[in-house]
Amino acid sequence: MKLLEMTVEGFLAELGSDSPAPGGGSAAALAGAIAASLCEMVCRLTLGREAYRDVWAVIEEAQIRAASLGSRLRELVEEDAQAFNSVMTARKLPRGTEEQKAARERALQEAALKSARVPLETLEYLAALADLAVVCADLGNPACVTDAGSAAQMIRAGGAAAAWNVRVNLPSIKDAKAREELGSNAAGLLAGIVKASGQVDAMVEKSMNERSRT
Amino acid sequence: MKLLEMTVEGFLAELGSDSPAPGGGSAAALAGAIAASLCEMVCRLTLGREAYRDVWAVIEEAQIRAASLGSRLRELVEEDAQAFNSVMTARKLPRGTEEQKAARERALQEAALKSARVPLETLEYLAALADLAVVCADLGNPACVTDAGSAAQMIRAGGAAAAWNVRVNLPSIKDAKAREELGSNAAGLLAGIVKASGQVDAMVEKSMNERSRT
Repeated sequence: MKLLEMTVEGFLAELGSDSPAPGGGSAAALAGAIAASLCEMVCRLTLGREAYRDVWAVIEEAQIRAASLGSRLRELVEEDAQAFNSVMTARKLPRGTEEQKAARERALQEAALKSARVPLETLEYLAALADLAVVCADLGNPACVTDAGSAAQMIRAGGAAAAWNVRVNLPSIKDAKAREELGSNAAGLLAGIVKASGQVDAMVEKSMNERSRT
Repeated sequence: MKLLEMTVEGFLAELGSDSPAPGGGSAAALAGAIAASLCEMVCRLTLGREAYRDVWAVIEEAQIRAASLGSRLRELVEEDAQAFNSVMTARKLPRGTEEQKAARERALQEAALKSARVPLETLEYLAALADLAVVCADLGNPACVTDAGSAAQMIRAGGAAAAWNVRVNLPSIKDAKAREELGSNAAGLLAGIVKASGQVDAMVEKSMNERSRT
C-alpha cells in the first residue's frame, strides 16, 4: 500500500514500526509536504481578500508553485522509503561466486547512490519552498503569518533531516566525485534553507510584537 | 470526518484548503506525532538487538513513553483545529442586545483561552518528547541516529510553531494573569525544547563525523 494512501493514523503507526523504512528521510519529505500545504493555505486566504489585491498576482503564482512543490514532496515520502529498501535488498543478494559478488557490489552502489540522491532532491524542493515561505510571510494575509512561520519551521526541520540522510549514505559510495558533489550540494542547499527560514522567523517575531502592542 | 482518519494525501489537501483550520497549530502537533513515531521506531530497532542489551530497560521505557506522548499529540492535531473553529463560531454570535453582547464576549474569551491552551499543551508534550529524543540519540541503535535527529528537528519545529500559536492568541485574552502565565509557560517550554534538540543535533553530528572517518 502506498504510504500517502494510508490514513494519517496508519502512516504514523507504520513510521513507528520496527521496519527501518519509512524513517527520517520520509519524515523530511513529509515535513516539506506539510509546509507546502500551509503555504498554499496562506495564499488561498490572501487571494480573494480585497485588502490584498495589490499582491494577488505574486500570491497566485506562489500558490501554484506551492501546490507543485508539495506534489513532488509527497512522492519523495514514498521514494525515500523505496531507496532505503533497495539497500536492504542489495545486502541480501548472494555472494557465493565472484560474479555474484560483483553483481551485489553494483547493486549496493546503485542503492547507496539512490539513498543519497532522494534526500538531496528533497532538499532541492525544500529550498524552493523556503523562498515561497518568505513570500507568504512577507506579502500574505497577516492573520496567517504564524502559518507561514510554521511552514518555514517544517522546511528547516525537513532540510536538516534530509541533509543527514544524504550524509549518512556517503561513506557507502565508492565514487569519490559523486560523494563530494552530493555532500557539498546538500550542505549548500541546507544553508540556503536555514537562511530563508531565519528571515521568516524574524518576520513572524516582528508581526507578533506589533500585534501585542495593539 | 476526523483529521487523523483521513488519508495523508487527504489531510494535506485539507491543510492546504482555504479553511483556516487545520493550520499551523495542528501542523505543530502533527510534527510532534511524527517525532513520537520516529522515537518509537528507534526504540524498536534497539530492543531485541543483543548488542544493546545493557540499555534495553531504559529504551523499553522510552518506547512506552513515546507511544503515549504520540497518542496525545495525535489528539491535539484535532483539538487545535476545534479550538480555532470555536473562535470563528463565537465571532458569529448575535450582538443585538446587551445580553447577547455579553454572551458573545464570554464565548470569545473562552475560545481565545482554549486556542492558547491547546498549543501550550502541545508544547508540554513536545518538551517531554524532546527528552526522549535525547535518550534515543544517546543510547539507541547508532544505525538510527539520524532518525532520532530527525525526530528532534520535528520537535523543535513543532515547538516553535506551537509557541507562536500560543502568543498569537494572547492579545485577545482579557484576563491579564492568564495571559502572562500562558506566555511565560510557552517561552519556558520552548527554551527547554531548543536546548534538548541542540543536544541531539550535536550527538548526530558527532556520530556522522565518526562514521565518515571509518
